[in-house]
Amino acid sequence: MLVAARELLVERGYDELTMDAVAERAGVHRTTVYRRWRDVGGLLADVLDVAGGDDWRPPDTGTLEGDLVAVNAEVEAALSAEAVIAALIAASFRSQEAAGALRRFWEERYARCAVVVERAVRRGECPEGTCARRVLVAATAPVYQQRVLVRGGADPELGRQAARSVALGAAGGLFVTGAGGG
Amino acid sequence: MLVAARELLVERGYDELTMDAVAERAGVHRTTVYRRWRDVGGLLADVLDVAGGDDWRPPDTGTLEGDLVAVNAEVEAALSAEAVIAALIAASFRSQEAAGALRRFWEERYARCAVVVERAVRRGECPEGTCARRVLVAATAPVYQQRVLVRGGADPELGRQAARSVALGAAGGLFVTGAGGG
Repeated sequence: MLVAARELLVERGYDELTMDAVAERAGVHRTTVYRRWRDVGGLLADVLDVAGGDDWRPPDTGTLEGDLVAVNAEVEAALSAEAVIAALIAASFRSQEAAGALRRFWEERYARCAVVVERAVRRGECPEGTCARRVLVAATAPVYQQRVLVRGGADPELGRQAARSVALGAAGGLFVTGAGGG
Repeated sequence: MLVAARELLVERGYDELTMDAVAERAGVHRTTVYRRWRDVGGLLADVLDVAGGDDWRPPDTGTLEGDLVAVNAEVEAALSAEAVIAALIAASFRSQEAAGALRRFWEERYARCAVVVERAVRRGECPEGTCARRVLVAATAPVYQQRVLVRGGADPELGRQAARSVALGAAGGLFVTGAGGG
């Protein structure tokens, strides 16, 4: 049923994603869908939670810059290839449950990526106290801004330049908490 | 009527923003609303176009870092104070016209802010060929990511750190086109 919901969301968007449509696509009775989810928001939240439950690991290229550039290349590729991400972000503006699930998804990804910064600290590339979450938000946000919010075309160079710039800033201690100034 | 539409959007959200509700709030006959706009999408696009038609100018603090930090402080304050921005972004996922208007709004803001980078180039803070748009997207995107997409709390330090990091990267020539590597 989650696969059916995901397909419908990509093909038709949130407005046409109904419990009945999911039942029809999945070939089950509608009561089966309603037994599992109260409404479309709950169903969407599960689609996202499943997406976040994969075994994805951040790249390990040997440098912070290389890792961040590689992460942005993955984000760019995912936004180009998988319409489900854009559809889920759109749905998050319609359903509180989807918004909460999206937030959990991102926080879980930031947490999983923290190892990229921890390794950089161990290698001496950036100082102790560097905030991994802020490094990751700063590095990846420009790609989401360009593709999802501004709805501009793919700009892989933006992702690379943003990643390299954040790596340079991190090396300079700019992401140590308190370094931003008052 | 635009003021009425803006108020309704903030108070009740896109779902309850109807042509009739706008007429009622503005105290005009519904035909007056329909004479001017075909549908809610067109009306929303005008709300955004009016928002973009102000005389806002980017800060001029004397350094690229100071200017970018000040821009992010303004974005952060606007997202905290003006629910209309978040409401318009949400609406952009429902209406093609609103999405187009939001894109024009952002591109116009990036263009208006380009002077921040042009001044930095003239002062010798960053090299000729630095892409102003990418500098501005990279500096400001983390604030939108945190507040609008992840829906995290206000994190002014994120905005300051991202701005300072982008200024450092620009000074290092990282935003010259082609500098991102292949």
